[in-house]
Amino acid sequence: MSILIKNGNIVTASENFIGDIFIENETISAIGKNLKYEADEVIDASGKLIFPGGIDPHVHLDMPFMGTFSSDSYETGTRAALFGGTTMVIDFILQTQGKSLRSALEEWKGRSEGNAVGDYSFHMAVTDYNDNTKPEIREMIEEEGITSFKTFMAYKGALMVDDRQMVGLMEEVKQHGGLINVHATNGDMIDYLVQKNRNEGNRAPIYHYLSQPEVTEAEASERFVDMTNFTGCPGYIVHLTCEGALNAVRNATRRNQHVFVETCIQYLILDASLYEQDFEGAKWVMSPPLREKKDQETLWAGINQGLVNVVATDHCPFFWEQKLMGIDDFSKIPNGHPAVENRMELLYSEGVHKGRITLSKFVEVACTNPAKIFGMYPKKGTICIGSDADLVIFDPNEKHTLSAKTHHMNVDYSGYEGWEVTGKVKTVLLRGKVAISNNECLVEKGYGQFIKRNKVSDKI
Amino acid sequence: MSILIKNGNIVTASENFIGDIFIENETISAIGKNLKYEADEVIDASGKLIFPGGIDPHVHLDMPFMGTFSSDSYETGTRAALFGGTTMVIDFILQTQGKSLRSALEEWKGRSEGNAVGDYSFHMAVTDYNDNTKPEIREMIEEEGITSFKTFMAYKGALMVDDRQMVGLMEEVKQHGGLINVHATNGDMIDYLVQKNRNEGNRAPIYHYLSQPEVTEAEASERFVDMTNFTGCPGYIVHLTCEGALNAVRNATRRNQHVFVETCIQYLILDASLYEQDFEGAKWVMSPPLREKKDQETLWAGINQGLVNVVATDHCPFFWEQKLMGIDDFSKIPNGHPAVENRMELLYSEGVHKGRITLSKFVEVACTNPAKIFGMYPKKGTICIGSDADLVIFDPNEKHTLSAKTHHMNVDYSGYEGWEVTGKVKTVLLRGKVAISNNECLVEKGYGQFIKRNKVSDKI
Amino acid sequence: MSILIKNGNIVTASENFIGDIFIENETISAIGKNLKYEADEVIDASGKLIFPGGIDPHVHLDMPFMGTFSSDSYETGTRAALFGGTTMVIDFILQTQGKSLRSALEEWKGRSEGNAVGDYSFHMAVTDYNDNTKPEIREMIEEEGITSFKTFMAYKGALMVDDRQMVGLMEEVKQHGGLINVHATNGDMIDYLVQKNRNEGNRAPIYHYLSQPEVTEAEASERFVDMTNFTGCPGYIVHLTCEGALNAVRNATRRNQHVFVETCIQYLILDASLYEQDFEGAKWVMSPPLREKKDQETLWAGINQGLVNVVATDHCPFFWEQKLMGIDDFSKIPNGHPAVENRMELLYSEGVHKGRITLSKFVEVACTNPAKIFGMYPKKGTICIGSDADLVIFDPNEKHTLSAKTHHMNVDYSGYEGWEVTGKVKTVLLRGKVAISNNECLVEKGYGQFIKRNKVSDKI
Amino acid sequence: MSILIKNGNIVTASENFIGDIFIENETISAIGKNLKYEADEVIDASGKLIFPGGIDPHVHLDMPFMGTFSSDSYETGTRAALFGGTTMVIDFILQTQGKSLRSALEEWKGRSEGNAVGDYSFHMAVTDYNDNTKPEIREMIEEEGITSFKTFMAYKGALMVDDRQMVGLMEEVKQHGGLINVHATNGDMIDYLVQKNRNEGNRAPIYHYLSQPEVTEAEASERFVDMTNFTGCPGYIVHLTCEGALNAVRNATRRNQHVFVETCIQYLILDASLYEQDFEGAKWVMSPPLREKKDQETLWAGINQGLVNVVATDHCPFFWEQKLMGIDDFSKIPNGHPAVENRMELLYSEGVHKGRITLSKFVEVACTNPAKIFGMYPKKGTICIGSDADLVIFDPNEKHTLSAKTHHMNVDYSGYEGWEVTGKVKTVLLRGKVAISNNECLVEKGYGQFIKRNKVSDKI
Repeated sequence: MSILIKNGNIVTASENFIGDIFIENETISAIGKNLKYEADEVIDASGKLIFPGGIDPHVHLDMPFMGTFSSDSYETGTRAALFGGTTMVIDFILQTQGKSLRSALEEWKGRSEGNAVGDYSFHMAVTDYNDNTKPEIREMIEEEGITSFKTFMAYKGALMVDDRQMVGLMEEVKQHGGLINVHATNGDMIDYLVQKNRNEGNRAPIYHYLSQPEVTEAEASERFVDMTNFTGCPGYIVHLTCEGALNAVRNATRRNQHVFVETCIQYLILDASLYEQDFEGAKWVMSPPLREKKDQETLWAGINQGLVNVVATDHCPFFWEQKLMGIDDFSKIPNGHPAVENRMELLYSEGVHKGRITLSKFVEVACTNPAKIFGMYPKKGTICIGSDADLVIFDPNEKHTLSAKTHHMNVDYSGYEGWEVTGKVKTVLLRGKVAISNNECLVEKGYGQFIKRNKVSDKI
Repeated sequence: MSILIKNGNIVTASENFIGDIFIENETISAIGKNLKYEADEVIDASGKLIFPGGIDPHVHLDMPFMGTFSSDSYETGTRAALFGGTTMVIDFILQTQGKSLRSALEEWKGRSEGNAVGDYSFHMAVTDYNDNTKPEIREMIEEEGITSFKTFMAYKGALMVDDRQMVGLMEEVKQHGGLINVHATNGDMIDYLVQKNRNEGNRAPIYHYLSQPEVTEAEASERFVDMTNFTGCPGYIVHLTCEGALNAVRNATRRNQHVFVETCIQYLILDASLYEQDFEGAKWVMSPPLREKKDQETLWAGINQGLVNVVATDHCPFFWEQKLMGIDDFSKIPNGHPAVENRMELLYSEGVHKGRITLSKFVEVACTNPAKIFGMYPKKGTICIGSDADLVIFDPNEKHTLSAKTHHMNVDYSGYEGWEVTGKVKTVLLRGKVAISNNECLVEKGYGQFIKRNKVSDKI
Repeated sequence: MSILIKNGNIVTASENFIGDIFIENETISAIGKNLKYEADEVIDASGKLIFPGGIDPHVHLDMPFMGTFSSDSYETGTRAALFGGTTMVIDFILQTQGKSLRSALEEWKGRSEGNAVGDYSFHMAVTDYNDNTKPEIREMIEEEGITSFKTFMAYKGALMVDDRQMVGLMEEVKQHGGLINVHATNGDMIDYLVQKNRNEGNRAPIYHYLSQPEVTEAEASERFVDMTNFTGCPGYIVHLTCEGALNAVRNATRRNQHVFVETCIQYLILDASLYEQDFEGAKWVMSPPLREKKDQETLWAGINQGLVNVVATDHCPFFWEQKLMGIDDFSKIPNGHPAVENRMELLYSEGVHKGRITLSKFVEVACTNPAKIFGMYPKKGTICIGSDADLVIFDPNEKHTLSAKTHHMNVDYSGYEGWEVTGKVKTVLLRGKVAISNNECLVEKGYGQFIKRNKVSDKI
Repeated sequence: MSILIKNGNIVTASENFIGDIFIENETISAIGKNLKYEADEVIDASGKLIFPGGIDPHVHLDMPFMGTFSSDSYETGTRAALFGGTTMVIDFILQTQGKSLRSALEEWKGRSEGNAVGDYSFHMAVTDYNDNTKPEIREMIEEEGITSFKTFMAYKGALMVDDRQMVGLMEEVKQHGGLINVHATNGDMIDYLVQKNRNEGNRAPIYHYLSQPEVTEAEASERFVDMTNFTGCPGYIVHLTCEGALNAVRNATRRNQHVFVETCIQYLILDASLYEQDFEGAKWVMSPPLREKKDQETLWAGINQGLVNVVATDHCPFFWEQKLMGIDDFSKIPNGHPAVENRMELLYSEGVHKGRITLSKFVEVACTNPAKIFGMYPKKGTICIGSDADLVIFDPNEKHTLSAKTHHMNVDYSGYEGWEVTGKVKTVLLRGKVAISNNECLVEKGYGQFIKRNKVSDKI
């Protein structure tokens, strides 16, 4: 089986040129100008951009959380991702405290295997690091190809590890070639504020925001950065939202340290004024919450400065009915919002189209860096010889409007309802197969594969 | 005319894969696995790396300076560059104060045209910005394809512009799509120390170093960063050497600013202890001088942090006899050292081979970023379809020793005599022609072309 | 002659207690509770505060500037100061470029001697540092008791010294035990903007403000701080107005450096919105201009953090008719505003009364630090045994309104017209003599003495 | 009862003059030149300095710790303090987790009442903040005059509070006018390293040092500073030792925050090289451990920059036999060293005599700031009318040698054995009584009083 894509404007993290791409079976085998290759199928990409398939390294599918489950299954979530030009996601396994990493892996495999439409991998969230889990780190890396370990500095009593566990885990992870990623907010400070607000009868969604001020994220980011400096373990801060937290990473550059930073599309383009609308604000209740305009500017600049490396989503959708669990208490609103389908188009429209970042920077933060940082490169994340033919053919000029009516995520509202974007995903290939075309998904549940990942470092 | 290079390990700023490259005339027309193309010539690159041709954006050829001329002509300099895997250089035109930019351009054309073996471009050093030179900025950018303007914050009375000229120039350059690069050291402070040391009878080369302490560079870098912030003009600091200066750039990131930084290979691997050897130290008399070990660490980290974007040379060779002009007075030693031929191999050996940077980072700072920042991309600086076939076939394992006996630069000493490097340039192509092979140069004087450059921005 | 002041609340930079003060002739000879001393005169200070006489180390009296003279003579200026609780001022001698420091001193003596009502000293503004002026530095310090040397980084061609002169001067000043104070704004950048605004027809007072943005002050402050670090000369930044400039001092603390900082009362309490009123804004045309609310907060915090050491005025009054010289061109508006009489009451009211600073901090920055930094302590600046009996008896509760109608400065407008203050100067003693009482001045022109000052250091 | 001290060089935090002091009963009633007062006793202080009595706000007397008790009782400790010119100490009450603050206070009263020779107060160390202890905060402040609350970020399971308790406590303390002081080191990181070193057989005293690297203190200091910023509670970091931690305070000044900093005499003059001597190093096993030379420089500069406010001791002596408890395991060595008697002389000799700080700065950090910050001013900490007559008559020229043979602390070794100091405490008065004279203590056990303290703020 072969496909020839002709005359596209091919864009990678460093390149930008017109050419043809020849695909044999699952991988790219040639790139050229007027390639003299015959193919089973020819796709004309004239006037279109061709990106590598997007990689969203931060999603939560079918995840048990706050007494419910996030509403996208591996099937609906990865399919929606494909519609939006994201061909692979990395989901999070959550260890149950007191149990093994292995058992959590089995549970997640049970929910995911055979169900995914697009490709996926797992981060392992270690919530209980002890003498039993210690040997499992090597096992996950060497045997399972799970090379990144998530920790929470918040959600005490459920997910949070203390600093001692964190440091021990870092040393183990470092030794075996893995990386730590972290939810860096100070759980104690937040718990204090949540409780205080609840006690004072402050129950509306805006109090979710007011219970997680910038300093709670800045503090935990500083602490994480200090601990990675101390251990030498490669570190990655997920969903960084604000100036205070980015300053922690900046300050660390003074001592010759380098920590990877992920932000999410919503923190670049939405702000906390959305919480001012009574319960409607529940749509954007997530942790960390949306921030201020000045933080958006910091994050866009951070991308260009090379300090912000990845734009993800923290996709974690809940139906409105689920959100209503918190109608009387913001602390009961399931945290998260749907975005996996919208990330690439929003980032293109707000970033590239509006002149804030270059096309190559777009590909770097949305496709290539996730693959490199998490050990999937060059199989994933770029357009080069031998790589998986995960491709997005994109019309840079087509304008359209985002809406829950038209999206494919399994959730009944959109965080971007009515948002006009310039640029549209037209055709998506996953491992050499046309997955999306004419607004239809052409691959089935089960086509998506689990991707084993390689060891990593703090240099990419 | 066509060439097929087979089975090389192709490396770009973002990619790293095994493949073939097919070249038609001057450009690359296909890249693939086992490309089924017939070519006039086939080169086997098995076991070799293939980089884009190196670009050294900071050289001084045949330059009148301190009463003499730098000893490499456009012929010898660009030929030596080719031997070292650098297929293009950017030289500096120096305006004479009181005269036009145009007349300086003509003078430099007179020395360069028809003489270069490798490709080249010019930065225009503006040493006298006034109502007459103001309209020439647009002219240089629009008509001559010279889109970068060098300024000196040192060498008062000869090359230095004051801050008022600097700010005015920046506004003009910005308006027409150019970029300012700067020699950022405080000339007044240095002149003071030079004079003081000379008066006190301190005449040895080490006093060159002691007359340019870190703070003189930190100060000017802060000032330049402030002026680019003020005007919004894209800025680029040449030959940044030290922690204090890099901190100026770091601090600027806090206000969402981004300034490009170039260091040179010598500042990454040599240090000021070399000045301790009596007059022998004259070999490394350059401005700024070599610094400390801690500065080397800052610069290597800066590359990985994305704060240092380019590794150049400031190649400016002088024969030992020329250096002897300063035997009795360090301030009369012609400033500069030969390095254009050694840059790529030293950076590979000390950077990639020793694990300090990745292969892609190597290509990024030595090839691709210079092309992008200075408006030559994608014609130059990468390996992609339609780009000039400027390629380096490199044996990553071959060990050899640098020496004046074997180098091709027109100078009778080496700054790296006896330095053992791992990795060797084997074959070099320039615009589709084999320029270097078997330690021989196969292209003639005059083959090198002047490259017109495009407008630029502070985003790449 | 003796005076006993009874039952006052005596406040110094470190103390705060109830007691009596016994004065013999010009100095304080005892302090105690119910002092059993008989005196020629007894003053009851019950319910009043007693401060040391204020010292304003930054005034311009009878100064030739911009084609006119500042409107307060030594007589009117020092008398107004006394009314406001300031018993001593330090004025600035301006060297004429090409002439000696000595000749400038003689000129200033000519205008001041026999004319002052309150005590005074001079800073020597060095505007032309060269081989002729070099030996005069020692002379001024050793023979004249003038131990502080002012430099301008702005007003090129008139007052500005370049960095080479600055560094040379610093080394000389340091060697003889003096201190450098500096007007730290980048003259080149400002000249550029002034010219640009004038060329574009932007002639209103607000363009004075827009021609001196924060970065012009931040830059020069960074540079000055770098040069004092380089030379080791004690440094003092006059009239620092903004966050960017204070950050330069903050950053320097990281390298264990300490630079003294003066702000002025207007920068603590007025802001740039005053320039929005057409030509009325000319009242506050001064250099640097008023800044933003955020800068006020930075400065108040800086006082409590120990980073801002002195609150002065830069008193430099001009009649409205003089201000009108710039009716068609902001650059012709004489720079300066009247404040010497208002400083102590405004700082008390806005600082102490509103809870921003403590009483001792008030005395520290308005009285004691100026004396210590400039080498007049313990003769001046405090209330202790043997010190000059320069005292202010102050009613902390009396409310009154500032106005040109009631002030004693020789100028027909007030920068604080209608401003309500809490706290009023009731009685002022200067060297043991009641100078102000019942809103009358009881000492004559000529009573004020020139105060020779001692050598200084960067430690107080 | 009255005393007249004649002709001393009286020094306060802002003054420095020659005069007499007249004392009636416990307090100072007059200061003057040749005071014409008759007294029961006359002391000639010609040629001597007179300081306020030193206040050491950080001592541990008769403290249960690590299975033993610190070896100085209230009697021996406060008497030794008096010999060294320290007339008052602040000790720490340690709450037992699960019990009330009140019960801890009672326990400490049991050990201290009737036993002290010099004056004293208590900080209350809150180790278990909960709904029961919450109302005790107001009680301690309002009823007991204990207005400072110590927290530990280390010693988990024994003394440490988590961040939630910390934030809650801060809000309560702030509301009632108190202040939080903190032991800011990351207990989890330290516990991890201690355990790791013990497991690896690293048992010598140097591993105490290696288990508490700078980053563990920097981290906790950043976190504490963030939490005080968040709550607005006045904060005070005890025994800050290093550059990294001081940078946390420096960074906070950027957001207009002010946190008080205490260092201890040992961190200014000793360094970690002392741990290199096998078990001998146990003498200086304390937490945090001694640091590097660069940290000493940072701390001395910090005093002059106004960032370091207090020099204390953390006096916590143990006999050599007690130290031997850790002969096989550094983690069992009782932490602490004797210093309360040596602080004033060492700080004078190393600070004032060597020209690092001025005399007034010496008094500020050793006497006055502790009194102001902790709410005892003006009763304590200065020489002014109405203050307690706590005075030190000091010979600035007398050289002597510190030794366990001559010190009065109840411990058989000196941390400063053989150290030559310039300057000696000659006579000490406490509340108007000569307490030390001719190397004898003239006051009895029980003379020392508990000093109730006032409410405080972050401004002094």
